[in-house]
Amino acid sequence: MDELQQQVEENILWLSSIGGTKSGGITRLLYDDQWITAQNNLKEHFEKIGLEATYDEVGNLFGRLEGSKYPDETIMSGSHIDTVVEGGKLDGQFGVIAAYLALDYLKNNYGQPLRSLEVISLAEEEGSRFPYAFWGSKNVWGLAKKEDVLDAKDIDGVSFSEAMNKAGFDFKQSTDRRTDIKSFVELHIEQGNVLETLEKSVGVVTDIVGQKRYTVTLTGEANHAGTTPMNYRRDAVYGYSQIVSQTIDYAKTLGDPLVVTFGEMEITPNTVNVVPGKVSFTIDCRHTNGQLLELFTKDMENIMRKVAKENDLTINISLWMEEKPVPMNESLVEVIKRACSEAALDYHIMHSGAGHDSQIFASFVPTAMIFVPSIKGISHNPAEDTTICDLTKGVRALIATLYKLAYEE
Amino acid sequence: MDELQQQVEENILWLSSIGGTKSGGITRLLYDDQWITAQNNLKEHFEKIGLEATYDEVGNLFGRLEGSKYPDETIMSGSHIDTVVEGGKLDGQFGVIAAYLALDYLKNNYGQPLRSLEVISLAEEEGSRFPYAFWGSKNVWGLAKKEDVLDAKDIDGVSFSEAMNKAGFDFKQSTDRRTDIKSFVELHIEQGNVLETLEKSVGVVTDIVGQKRYTVTLTGEANHAGTTPMNYRRDAVYGYSQIVSQTIDYAKTLGDPLVVTFGEMEITPNTVNVVPGKVSFTIDCRHTNGQLLELFTKDMENIMRKVAKENDLTINISLWMEEKPVPMNESLVEVIKRACSEAALDYHIMHSGAGHDSQIFASFVPTAMIFVPSIKGISHNPAEDTTICDLTKGVRALIATLYKLAYEE
Repeated sequence: MDELQQQVEENILWLSSIGGTKSGGITRLLYDDQWITAQNNLKEHFEKIGLEATYDEVGNLFGRLEGSKYPDETIMSGSHIDTVVEGGKLDGQFGVIAAYLALDYLKNNYGQPLRSLEVISLAEEEGSRFPYAFWGSKNVWGLAKKEDVLDAKDIDGVSFSEAMNKAGFDFKQSTDRRTDIKSFVELHIEQGNVLETLEKSVGVVTDIVGQKRYTVTLTGEANHAGTTPMNYRRDAVYGYSQIVSQTIDYAKTLGDPLVVTFGEMEITPNTVNVVPGKVSFTIDCRHTNGQLLELFTKDMENIMRKVAKENDLTINISLWMEEKPVPMNESLVEVIKRACSEAALDYHIMHSGAGHDSQIFASFVPTAMIFVPSIKGISHNPAEDTTICDLTKGVRALIATLYKLAYEE
Repeated sequence: MDELQQQVEENILWLSSIGGTKSGGITRLLYDDQWITAQNNLKEHFEKIGLEATYDEVGNLFGRLEGSKYPDETIMSGSHIDTVVEGGKLDGQFGVIAAYLALDYLKNNYGQPLRSLEVISLAEEEGSRFPYAFWGSKNVWGLAKKEDVLDAKDIDGVSFSEAMNKAGFDFKQSTDRRTDIKSFVELHIEQGNVLETLEKSVGVVTDIVGQKRYTVTLTGEANHAGTTPMNYRRDAVYGYSQIVSQTIDYAKTLGDPLVVTFGEMEITPNTVNVVPGKVSFTIDCRHTNGQLLELFTKDMENIMRKVAKENDLTINISLWMEEKPVPMNESLVEVIKRACSEAALDYHIMHSGAGHDSQIFASFVPTAMIFVPSIKGISHNPAEDTTICDLTKGVRALIATLYKLAYEE
């Protein structure tokens, strides 16, 4: 068996055992015992393979290989080690494992790099213990504010600072940013089914989508299902059905990368023989182009208001999440494409439909992402998986990219 | 003030006090204390106004005014005195009150009738204490079977027979049917908004609708809302929305009296950022014409299967309730129409979209119904109401009808 492939397999197995659940998944939440064990074991491992391992104040872990010629130019790679509750064994930690395996491979095969190489094991991305996501990367870039998490409590009532202090960490004293980081490359599973469907092993990410999320309430009148003629009704579900079908039909005519999802819905009174008087539902809408996302959601709002008016329903549209799209760095994307080509790795140019640490890094340093396929697109679930062959191809793509960035003039 | 109107008002007030709730409604369930008090007080009242009052074995209460010439031909009127939990003060009991007020009025104004007149206060119609509806009328016609209720328990675990025996009643020993009943006329609130919308005070019912109820499950695949392109989805909510809008659009082209309602719905997993993998929903479909109901539901099933196929969803359609339409007796409807015309009561010919005791009677004796408007169509709710003027007009229509049936040759 290929040695790198064996290392990928063994390292995923090893790190997955920390916080591993009966169902075969992982639950490892910010600052909990599994998280502490994982970070500490990673630190030991970084040191073992010859990296200079350090924590920052909040618990982001770094493993550094100093550059010979440009030590103050750091090429960084990594991802997060926290999971959702009953998450899979790849989302996040695969990017950390891939990064230190890449550094180890490069050091063993090519010696000291010209530029410094660093692996980062980010403290937190998922927002699954406390209602705050990107705690790790936002701290790297001085964006995390103490007051944003001070009132946060986990499901057991433990406060953010209590959990943090117990793990041996504390808030950052300064918002100083590192100026040595020149590039950030994150390897991650796709969490979708595009690469699998196209039978590609590597995705080169050009954009992370922007998102808008809404809650909409349609209010009509609850009436007796038998005694209320069709034309006397103000049926909220009928309005809802028109909104969903018309919006999705319209989105389909516009095509990729636009996606729109009606994921949550609640009918009142939700009784077989009562015409529904009220429907509340959510909309999740994403696009890589901020302007097109704006245009679409404007059209969507018009569809909704028109349907509401036609059916004598009152409508309340509430936008509660808005994240701008984040383009990856074009030059860095070109480096990854060239690296893949030279390593004879067939890749697919794509966007990310999910949010990632890279979107935080991208505002400050040239950033790009590499994807590997997700079997059946499953993620945030113990069934989350990728073939070992595809995982290894992803690590090879990362090695080839980091070589170009850190070893070439 | 008009004396009859005053009696209507006083009697509704009086009977509503038994089982009256804080919210202004009534909770009076089969064989409970409120039910026993109500039936016993009605029995006393029947006797006070000169009716021969008797219970049958199960607790249906009769108040009889013997006919002079055709004593063995009985003209019966009445309704049920049980309510839903937190029901209104008209559904059911108004038909009982109207019947004894009518008999009292006729006796006082015209003396003994040619045919016998009887008011019936039926034990049960709603099925709200035990999962069995039409207990009263089904016992009148020997349709109720002991074994159908023997395992039934109420919400407190009290068995049907325990509740029955405590109230002083028992199962019928024989399934003999009365052969003297020649007509049954039931006065009831509409429980819809047709009469109110048309500004009519009296409805003459020609049919009670047939009903079919379904539970349908659409199964696709739950996927990440961001990473799954629109064309790679098997979105159960999209299928649902097409089924609802297409079915209702089609029903509207067919017009009254067809009604179709999508009252209940459940999405799985019901999460803002997950494409829904499964939707379960109910359909309630009604028509006065059994054949047209069949044709429509067949077309509806075709719509559903077509949508499921187009969206790569599996579909399960389960029919769990099927009740045939019940036409009212044409001659009796004509009598009511003539009676209304002669009493200068403007009426509207209509169907009943809800089930009533009359649908049980109709299989055995000429049966018809008279409706009065429901304010805003509200029923099964403490807010259930009808203007005193409309209620009195309903009683007048009943008096005029019973006069024709019992006093004319």
